[in-house]
Amino acid sequence: MKIAVDVMGTDYGLTELVQGAVDAVKKFACETILIGDAVKIEEVLAKLGIKDDRVRVHNASQVIEMDEHPAMAVKQKKDASIVVAARMLRQGLCDAVVSAGSTGAAMTAATLLTGRIKGVERPAIGLTIPGMGKGAVLVDAGANVDAKPSNLVQSAIMGSVYAEKILHILKPRVGLLNIGAEETKGNEQAQATFPLLKACKEINFQGNIEGRDITTGGTDVVVCDGFVGNALLKFGEGLAKTIFMLMKEAILTSGLLTKLGGGLIRPAMEKLRSKMDPNKYGGALLLGIKAPFVICHGNSKAYAITNAIGITIEFVKNNVTDVIAERIQQNKNMVGSV
Amino acid sequence: MKIAVDVMGTDYGLTELVQGAVDAVKKFACETILIGDAVKIEEVLAKLGIKDDRVRVHNASQVIEMDEHPAMAVKQKKDASIVVAARMLRQGLCDAVVSAGSTGAAMTAATLLTGRIKGVERPAIGLTIPGMGKGAVLVDAGANVDAKPSNLVQSAIMGSVYAEKILHILKPRVGLLNIGAEETKGNEQAQATFPLLKACKEINFQGNIEGRDITTGGTDVVVCDGFVGNALLKFGEGLAKTIFMLMKEAILTSGLLTKLGGGLIRPAMEKLRSKMDPNKYGGALLLGIKAPFVICHGNSKAYAITNAIGITIEFVKNNVTDVIAERIQQNKNMVGSV
Repeated sequence: MKIAVDVMGTDYGLTELVQGAVDAVKKFACETILIGDAVKIEEVLAKLGIKDDRVRVHNASQVIEMDEHPAMAVKQKKDASIVVAARMLRQGLCDAVVSAGSTGAAMTAATLLTGRIKGVERPAIGLTIPGMGKGAVLVDAGANVDAKPSNLVQSAIMGSVYAEKILHILKPRVGLLNIGAEETKGNEQAQATFPLLKACKEINFQGNIEGRDITTGGTDVVVCDGFVGNALLKFGEGLAKTIFMLMKEAILTSGLLTKLGGGLIRPAMEKLRSKMDPNKYGGALLLGIKAPFVICHGNSKAYAITNAIGITIEFVKNNVTDVIAERIQQNKNMVGSV
Repeated sequence: MKIAVDVMGTDYGLTELVQGAVDAVKKFACETILIGDAVKIEEVLAKLGIKDDRVRVHNASQVIEMDEHPAMAVKQKKDASIVVAARMLRQGLCDAVVSAGSTGAAMTAATLLTGRIKGVERPAIGLTIPGMGKGAVLVDAGANVDAKPSNLVQSAIMGSVYAEKILHILKPRVGLLNIGAEETKGNEQAQATFPLLKACKEINFQGNIEGRDITTGGTDVVVCDGFVGNALLKFGEGLAKTIFMLMKEAILTSGLLTKLGGGLIRPAMEKLRSKMDPNKYGGALLLGIKAPFVICHGNSKAYAITNAIGITIEFVKNNVTDVIAERIQQNKNMVGSV
């Protein structure tokens, strides 16, 4: 299996990405194509002492920066690393793409160049929110900020396939994010979506869920609009960071015994911190694209990239794309026949 | 000052609410009117050994339960505790209302019976999200789930007055919750709201903020739609609970030294937990109502009720209602004159 890694546009420079890809090659016995500034990539490989036939380099002379307009940049920069990666994926020159660059650019490149699965109205971003148990798949985490009810139904189907095939949850429970449990609650979007989800045979719909159910094991798949999902995701990131920081501060500004206690619990806290680290789950999946496309956080370290590559391999092995295509089609036939 | 407390409909029964109100009377030298089942309230007062002229009881023979339809229940149950409280507030028989019952019912009773401030299109729920520093006022936390841009502008004005007068933040920074910093980002609602906030002279608008800025001190007032605000608020509640639970679990399933460390840091952790406890901030304020109306969490303990009463006293002392009325009017004149 060949995984293309767009090594440009990350916060830490490309060393972490190259290291993560190389580690993945060893761990999963796959091949990787490192796409970006070939001179810089070769330098890093030399510095790391890597000589491995399974690690190839493909030059791309341009980069799409975080602050560029995604659609415009993808159209204009034909040799940007993410554009080259998306094109190679469509041409079958690789099996999956991993990027830590601009989410918008990756989304656009994937949709325009790699292409959508037949029947998918709009791709959505699916991502595992850590919590009790296996966590929950949040979909959509930011692709469609003005989603139609039918988009949310497709998100539910695609998120369920993700939970089933990647997280190995049998008949994953699907919840519609809302402000209350009753069917009549919520904004117009949620009220219009509820009956559609209820009628959808391709998912195991459990009804409305509230924000607090996401991390406490109340659901396996959280369906929401991309605006809400993105706000939630980033709020959670900030809140977790705040709690860990205030905890550290509380311990350091206390007496000697508390400080001693802080030292003693450090290993347990590090374990917890890593459990709550979204990087562990290998980034965000673009669901609805013809081949696996994963976007990692801009501040991803090597192990996050390795995990992301691991996810794409699971994705390919379990034919996630085909299963999504099949269920979207089933749903279309069903809706069409009513 | 006379604060009416609706003691019905809370998760813990009315003892906690009565205790909280009595504590507030001592702490703030105010008066309280306990509204609900008079027999039960008198029983609790007797059990607590309270004999204080400043604590009065007002019977209400009905209760609105959490699962009832708010508007219907408020119209039908004329003698429900929250309905009686809202009516007394309009009649000037008390200066503020505190309730721990159904948010929807309180919202409806306040709007229909106490009444809106002149010029306010729709009341909004304002609430302090704990975080670094003084935290941030989230508005709207669940009142208008399909808010128009003009509603969001009024939320921004009312939230700013709250931050200024209650949290004592000079020229509070206002941020529009969005998925990115640039003016052109976001859903239709956010894109339409941005220029209105930018033009609003009554607030100190700083531009878009993202979810992660809420707890990390990036803003003083977070403006968003009630659907998004409610989802965020409950997600944060669940996430904080999850982190503290997993922390406890991580410590208890570790070796003896970690357990010892856990014991040593407990006081510091309790302090942090209390800092992150939204109850500390005294509940959610209905902004845009003619008099202070505070809704506490259904699982509020006595100290949360005491804090909520403290907030309403600050609210009255600082003429928050008048200041809101004035700035809403200024904004209307300005918009009208353009």
